[in-house]
Amino acid sequence: MHSISDYQDNFLKYLDNQKIVKEPKSLYEPIQYILSLGGKRIRPILTLMVAEIFDQDYKRALPAALAVEVFHNFSLVHDDIMDDAPLRRGKETVHEKWNTNTGILSGDAMLILAYQYFEQYEPVIFQALAKIFSKTALEVCEGQQWDVDFENRDDVTIPEYLKMIEYKTAVLVGAAMKMGAIIAETSIENCEAIYDFGLNLGIAFQLQDDYLDAFGDPETFGKQVGGDIIENKKTYLYLKTLQFATPEVKEQLLHLYSIQPTDNSEKINSVKEIFNHTGASQATQEAIKEYTFKAFETLEELNIAQDKKAVLKAFGENLMSRKV
Amino acid sequence: MHSISDYQDNFLKYLDNQKIVKEPKSLYEPIQYILSLGGKRIRPILTLMVAEIFDQDYKRALPAALAVEVFHNFSLVHDDIMDDAPLRRGKETVHEKWNTNTGILSGDAMLILAYQYFEQYEPVIFQALAKIFSKTALEVCEGQQWDVDFENRDDVTIPEYLKMIEYKTAVLVGAAMKMGAIIAETSIENCEAIYDFGLNLGIAFQLQDDYLDAFGDPETFGKQVGGDIIENKKTYLYLKTLQFATPEVKEQLLHLYSIQPTDNSEKINSVKEIFNHTGASQATQEAIKEYTFKAFETLEELNIAQDKKAVLKAFGENLMSRKV
Repeated sequence: MHSISDYQDNFLKYLDNQKIVKEPKSLYEPIQYILSLGGKRIRPILTLMVAEIFDQDYKRALPAALAVEVFHNFSLVHDDIMDDAPLRRGKETVHEKWNTNTGILSGDAMLILAYQYFEQYEPVIFQALAKIFSKTALEVCEGQQWDVDFENRDDVTIPEYLKMIEYKTAVLVGAAMKMGAIIAETSIENCEAIYDFGLNLGIAFQLQDDYLDAFGDPETFGKQVGGDIIENKKTYLYLKTLQFATPEVKEQLLHLYSIQPTDNSEKINSVKEIFNHTGASQATQEAIKEYTFKAFETLEELNIAQDKKAVLKAFGENLMSRKV
Repeated sequence: MHSISDYQDNFLKYLDNQKIVKEPKSLYEPIQYILSLGGKRIRPILTLMVAEIFDQDYKRALPAALAVEVFHNFSLVHDDIMDDAPLRRGKETVHEKWNTNTGILSGDAMLILAYQYFEQYEPVIFQALAKIFSKTALEVCEGQQWDVDFENRDDVTIPEYLKMIEYKTAVLVGAAMKMGAIIAETSIENCEAIYDFGLNLGIAFQLQDDYLDAFGDPETFGKQVGGDIIENKKTYLYLKTLQFATPEVKEQLLHLYSIQPTDNSEKINSVKEIFNHTGASQATQEAIKEYTFKAFETLEELNIAQDKKAVLKAFGENLMSRKV
């Protein structure tokens, strides 16, 4: 087996070799720009790793890995327009650097480009890849729509929230891994099990994102700690607090989530205190463990050698012990 | 052979039977809305007609015809956002009725849905359809980008303009027809020839759109006559005028294209007069004839019975004699 950094290096080399910019440049330069902003490249790495785990040359999976990364970046470009976000990975977002119309159109082109990368596979594999890709892409749209809808609702339930993060984030992790399995032409059972592994790991990953956003170490956490609290985002921490809190504490939280002070530090500290003493923080950590455990359980269903299961488990543990 | 109205009726029945609206409704209702606004349904009809021309049951082509129509409507939803258009087919545009974010996200979902309709075909046909679809969809994005870029340029050439309308409009007509040929599993030569037929007919169609926008009969033309002139759009008529006009007349036109009077009737009349006496109107009509003739020429390359060529020719003549 190759190492994570081998996958990453080779993926980046493959990405660099793509001739993305052609005419009209105004359409393709924003694509090149967003793809070059970096990121952890977790999804394409997973596609490559899984292909090798099922005994395929991981380089065969490079086009699919690129499709996954281009799709992920497409969703960032369009989401950033919808959220009116000025920055992405510390740099200007596409619609800020160019304009909204460019963001829409370059995003559209990225979604189509992603499908084109699958054309390098023969018809049966091509169809299998395009099918899981379309299903996943549609779910990501649905997840984003739910996220938008939730902003204007005050009765979002925990199961609804979990469904939203499953669709918006986790299905693409599952699909990235399943694509590696499809390219390796392993059994349907293995394809399904690796998808479930990725799906549950993806949910755990997003819950941890919620947790770290409030309780991450400012020294190591990449973004501003407390960002979700400043934006009054209804995260898992928030929803669990509403579930656990006494009427008085609940009212206190709702008040804190209705104000927009100039200095947010007091608001952030008060909200974190509530998250902690209602038990919402602990419940979130337990949920992270639960989904990580679920992911590791599905590894047992995989028909592969123990040392390969160990590779997947190590990747999961690494991801879950992250501080960023 | 079935009649155009048979194809249209059966396509509309097929469209009606789709369960498009599911959860989250806020994502899918706009899709249902835009698809139900009507339109001539020319592209899906062409897919069905071509399938039958190459001896396939046209009903086999219904999923691909739907993909083409859903893609066309996707491009309308996103273009309407970019143009900030309030109306489409006399009704509110999606971003007006809902909001821009809904327009972006529902449009994205439509692009993905279009690919999903191809899943009903077996792998080899699926791949062939998805390939021509992706190529075409990307070209439509490029055409739209050129259209946007041209707005801020004063040196657009006739070949550039022709390339823009080819990509923005004509390639989808060619692709709609080629998909019918792919589903009928006819020869590669037939697939290419029918694509060229559709492509040239599509260019002629768009040039005629330019012409009718200025010189159409207000009684029968669906849109406001002179709309392009009011919006100072650089159409074929305009570009040909710049090519033919004396420096004085050219300056006159540039002046007319720089003003936004409250009452446009005088501006429209002056511009039309210039289009006429510079010979630009006649040159446009000649270009329409030229591309229609090119289309009819490619019919000769088709390996099908004469009566079937006659059907395609009649469709083309009908389209070119339209007043709306």
